Amino acid sequence: MGKMQRQISKIVGLTILMFGIACIGYAQTLKEVMQERSLSEKDMLAAAKTYTPTGMKDEYIVFSSGGQSGQLIVYGVPSMRILKYVAVFTPEPWQGYGYGESESMEVLEQGKINGRSITWGDTHHPALSETNGDYDGRWVFINDKANPRVALIDLKTFETKQIVVNPVFKSEHGSSVVTPNTEYVMEAAQYPAPFSNNYVPLEQYNELYRGGVTYWKFNKESILSLTRKGMKSLKKQGVDTGKLKGFEDQNFKGKDEFLNAVAAKIGKDAVNEHQADLMKYAEKEGRLDPEQSFTVEMPPYMQDITDAGKGPSFGWSFTNSINSERYVGGFGKGNTAFKDRLANEAGMSAKDTDYMHIVNWLEAEKLFKAGKFTKINGHAVITMKDMVAANAMFLLPEPKSPHGNDVTPDGKYIVVAGKLDTHASVFSFEKIMNLVKNKDFAGTDPYGLPILDMQKAMHTQVQLGLGPLHTQFDSVKGVAYTSLYVDSMVARWNYLEGKLLEKIPINYNIGHLVSAEGDTVDPDGKYLVALNKLAIDRFQQVGPLHPQNHQLIDITSGRKMQLLYDMALPLGEPHYAQMIKADKLNPITRYNKQSFSNYVRPGQEKIERNGNKVTIHSTAIRSHYSPEIIEVKKGDEITWHVTNVERAQDQVHGFGIDNYNVHGSLEPGETATFHFVADKEGVFPYYCTEFCSALHLEMTGYLLVKP
Amino acid sequence: MGKMQRQISKIVGLTILMFGIACIGYAQTLKEVMQERSLSEKDMLAAAKTYTPTGMKDEYIVFSSGGQSGQLIVYGVPSMRILKYVAVFTPEPWQGYGYGESESMEVLEQGKINGRSITWGDTHHPALSETNGDYDGRWVFINDKANPRVALIDLKTFETKQIVVNPVFKSEHGSSVVTPNTEYVMEAAQYPAPFSNNYVPLEQYNELYRGGVTYWKFNKESILSLTRKGMKSLKKQGVDTGKLKGFEDQNFKGKDEFLNAVAAKIGKDAVNEHQADLMKYAEKEGRLDPEQSFTVEMPPYMQDITDAGKGPSFGWSFTNSINSERYVGGFGKGNTAFKDRLANEAGMSAKDTDYMHIVNWLEAEKLFKAGKFTKINGHAVITMKDMVAANAMFLLPEPKSPHGNDVTPDGKYIVVAGKLDTHASVFSFEKIMNLVKNKDFAGTDPYGLPILDMQKAMHTQVQLGLGPLHTQFDSVKGVAYTSLYVDSMVARWNYLEGKLLEKIPINYNIGHLVSAEGDTVDPDGKYLVALNKLAIDRFQQVGPLHPQNHQLIDITSGRKMQLLYDMALPLGEPHYAQMIKADKLNPITRYNKQSFSNYVRPGQEKIERNGNKVTIHSTAIRSHYSPEIIEVKKGDEITWHVTNVERAQDQVHGFGIDNYNVHGSLEPGETATFHFVADKEGVFPYYCTEFCSALHLEMTGYLLVKP
Repeated sequence: MGKMQRQISKIVGLTILMFGIACIGYAQTLKEVMQERSLSEKDMLAAAKTYTPTGMKDEYIVFSSGGQSGQLIVYGVPSMRILKYVAVFTPEPWQGYGYGESESMEVLEQGKINGRSITWGDTHHPALSETNGDYDGRWVFINDKANPRVALIDLKTFETKQIVVNPVFKSEHGSSVVTPNTEYVMEAAQYPAPFSNNYVPLEQYNELYRGGVTYWKFNKESILSLTRKGMKSLKKQGVDTGKLKGFEDQNFKGKDEFLNAVAAKIGKDAVNEHQADLMKYAEKEGRLDPEQSFTVEMPPYMQDITDAGKGPSFGWSFTNSINSERYVGGFGKGNTAFKDRLANEAGMSAKDTDYMHIVNWLEAEKLFKAGKFTKINGHAVITMKDMVAANAMFLLPEPKSPHGNDVTPDGKYIVVAGKLDTHASVFSFEKIMNLVKNKDFAGTDPYGLPILDMQKAMHTQVQLGLGPLHTQFDSVKGVAYTSLYVDSMVARWNYLEGKLLEKIPINYNIGHLVSAEGDTVDPDGKYLVALNKLAIDRFQQVGPLHPQNHQLIDITSGRKMQLLYDMALPLGEPHYAQMIKADKLNPITRYNKQSFSNYVRPGQEKIERNGNKVTIHSTAIRSHYSPEIIEVKKGDEITWHVTNVERAQDQVHGFGIDNYNVHGSLEPGETATFHFVADKEGVFPYYCTEFCSALHLEMTGYLLVKP
Repeated sequence: MGKMQRQISKIVGLTILMFGIACIGYAQTLKEVMQERSLSEKDMLAAAKTYTPTGMKDEYIVFSSGGQSGQLIVYGVPSMRILKYVAVFTPEPWQGYGYGESESMEVLEQGKINGRSITWGDTHHPALSETNGDYDGRWVFINDKANPRVALIDLKTFETKQIVVNPVFKSEHGSSVVTPNTEYVMEAAQYPAPFSNNYVPLEQYNELYRGGVTYWKFNKESILSLTRKGMKSLKKQGVDTGKLKGFEDQNFKGKDEFLNAVAAKIGKDAVNEHQADLMKYAEKEGRLDPEQSFTVEMPPYMQDITDAGKGPSFGWSFTNSINSERYVGGFGKGNTAFKDRLANEAGMSAKDTDYMHIVNWLEAEKLFKAGKFTKINGHAVITMKDMVAANAMFLLPEPKSPHGNDVTPDGKYIVVAGKLDTHASVFSFEKIMNLVKNKDFAGTDPYGLPILDMQKAMHTQVQLGLGPLHTQFDSVKGVAYTSLYVDSMVARWNYLEGKLLEKIPINYNIGHLVSAEGDTVDPDGKYLVALNKLAIDRFQQVGPLHPQNHQLIDITSGRKMQLLYDMALPLGEPHYAQMIKADKLNPITRYNKQSFSNYVRPGQEKIERNGNKVTIHSTAIRSHYSPEIIEVKKGDEITWHVTNVERAQDQVHGFGIDNYNVHGSLEPGETATFHFVADKEGVFPYYCTEFCSALHLEMTGYLLVKP
């Protein structure tokens, strides 16, 4: 029993004594409950640190990948309650995502690969948008490892707004990662493949298979619209805003289109005069811009985790790799028996070091803008040769089969953990730059990339334990936390002084870990979550497929780390997460009806027919749809706009049409549009699928399809 | 401040004082944490009752509907941690459900309606299987309100094994509910429609639209297979079990097929002699049997919640209804304007009473077995006329727009809550039977159904509050809990004595509620969960679509009810739930490899070609697939068996093929089979999607598709 434990024991021992004396009567005592549930003193401290009574809000919000569920998980810290699964790559009916609501259908359509609908994803690394290296709470990006894609989720609505498909990769992993002002969202390949979509035999792996990193340009002002506030401000300044009538309902693509459209109404001079105001009050939506995005070609090493430089290392990115051995296909081809060759896992781990790819993305951007790229599948690829010629890409050996690759908050160091090495290696960006500046290279790889000397770039190495993977940072300068997969522990250590401080066991086999604001220039410390890969015996058994276990750890400085809470993850295997201060988020609670061109008020409902095209403008309000009877003919093409005219928070209506595989979720103020063909004759009830009032069951209607 | 509050305050006041004195040093004290997080004394008691430290298991497991997610939610009590979302009606990639794994594809295929794939559901009421009126922990059933279907989940694996489509309903609601020995699973219609699939105008609503209740026959011994234990036992008794070689790998449909197959090998006499043993040790899987299922036709009232009689009321079922007004379509038809007529909600609530349908299902079963039914869409429908002639169906008026309809644990009473009435009405089964026996009818409805006198059947009525909905039962005889939707409260009351005992506020707008083992003949009391419809301000905002809020309440007898915990539900709006003692569940942690005919051991992997058909027998083990290279031609039909040869608990491998929309989850010992056509040329990595070891990223291979 350590000193701390003894003290806790003493304190709580007294407490229990007090409870013992005081507990005569009606009420239960803490002591009784603790005894009944076999809770220790330490447990009660952990309970006090995590228990969140009704109405109390969480201090931090975690955005966690949903793994093979294809979704994004949102949960609160310290309560560890899951607040939302956000539908991203996988259709999800509760949110009306992919079940007929046109906005979501369009987003999912963007995710098609070579014409094939891909209805799942393997989400790995969420990345919160940043301004000056700090989370700004506006967007979150997440990647799909299985089908190389990146999605954009708008944190005003917590809805997925865009999916981009990587035009040259067949697989990816080190994504999503943002640069310090969300200039770019980075996506690193994983399993090398030809950039083309053609068959290329594995014999040509070295020559024609490639890896790379795609830099997706993010434009925070992709879609603009005039707001009432903007209108008012213009009017106040004497602009004849009458001319801008209807402008609030329109979205414009980009700043230029927006300002030109306004100028066409009120004149160029007026726009020039009021441009600052116009832009200040404009409603802005960000989008990834494939036209302004490019890929840096890399050797067929398996690129892996990527991080962006910041501060002194701004403009650079760091991508490690496994299998620089370029080992392929242990067994199987031509039915080769199991025992004849090495399996991939062994062949890929033969060498003692692999490579970090060090890329100057500012330089790559210049090459792109100068037109120094090849178009492959319509997408700009900057060759290794051009990158080398521009002094913009280097390789740095990293100890054995590296995984974690994390830039320190001050941007001065990169911490690499080799999963088959027991050390964390801390590389100095300054030392790297000196080697680069002096062209002090240890050689080149088979693709002509200059290789830096590992030892010359190293700040320090610290032995942490077995299977070190990822690193997160503390508010205390120099203090870091590294996950130890094989040891099932988290190491607290100092990367400046090269000193191991403390280890805490977790349950079990930790992959990533996340600290509060841990990827920013200014981490908060306080909380750390261990994203464990195995739960085994931690929870009541629910069949052979177990939940995951995220464990909350108190990392307040000056105290030993304390395990606070075991959280079960019931759907998907999260890979990585980011934790943001809750008060940085500012989501809407209702939609501005002006966002929807098909918004109708009660009393304005109508059914329009034009040949076999039927357009329904309907409303939903507690507790009826209007209209409640729709008669169409078999074969009619239906466009059904449903407006939830509620304004009250959380007053959602669902919209399900029986047996037609149509379902939508209508949040307050939202107009959703459903397109489908009435291809089956019969009687089809539709109803509200959200229990919205005492007369919710009566909120129903009939779609009648005549033969 | 009540007496209890004062006492708690006194006790914890002393505690805090003690903490204040004791807290000088390194460790944090409970008092400090309480102050920092503004936790009250009452909060700490609640924390102690719910906080579940690492490794501690939950006492109860809740099976909750997943609402419009189409899934089933499993969570623990008192920790309120969600342990699993079980994929039921909606494809879900993490579980490999609907992404190529053939077993799941077949289950989802069963859920097609008139040839249309329905890829979501609106799950409402889970029903745990029962033996002698008590949960037996073997299966759980759940319905789909939107697309009238019932699913069966096997609690050995927590996987969905069967979906049946209602052949005559277009909508349902009061389902799933089981009879006391799971003889039948009941499914009540909701929105009336023609039993045929044809268009029938609403003008013929009264004549041709119908409701009803389907009684799905459940056979606990639908699929049998010989076990090793059974083999051993036979051998011990001198049977020549050598003749039964290979039998362990086979599944037989039904007891007869099983015993006959064994008899064909070891002789009829031997089977007769050892039948008891054979059946005792046989592995059994239950299935719903559509051939032995039937529907009881009912008037076009909107049938609603259904419950099964038990004890003295065994053999009867009770189904209430709304809209006995038969009001249809307030507005909309022919573009009628909003203001012209009543909306459905008003028209459907005009009368002061609606009807409970009282059905003698044992009698209905006799009619079915005697062939007294009409076949509609290939399904047996027993007409109202035949039910009336057999004295097997009656109507009982219930106060205004009833919703809850709950049989007491002793089977003697039925508690009905009318959502537009402030009372709970307690009907006496004995009184009902007296009226039935004496043919003491108050009249008949337009369909010839005898109507009983409400007052004569009534035991008592208790005024509970606004918007009473559902009732659950306590371990204390006579004590019940009823949800009050409009009041946002739970009422504790005594249905025998007709007395309101206590009310507790919840947050907000409670629908169903569930007590521990609350639907059995022997409820446990202790815990109650309020399934609230609105969360509003309880959690950190996550966009306009809020999580749901399930609140855990301590209902230990002898104490006031205490709100313990607010649980966020992140996906779907649960409608109902059942809570079972955790130790009644006995799920497997790994598969018996003998369940899979395509199981292969390491070293036995092979690729077989037969024209354009390619069959791959592969294995997955930490950290490689074998084979790792598969070359096929464009257009080849692939059958890919993947066996996870791991035996360790929780050692799952995923199997994802990039860009082919194929994903499976391979639990220890499982062989999964994927069928697809290699319709795209190119290079497609496949890899393990579950982080399974330190060399997990290296667990990969290439599917090469030649042109």
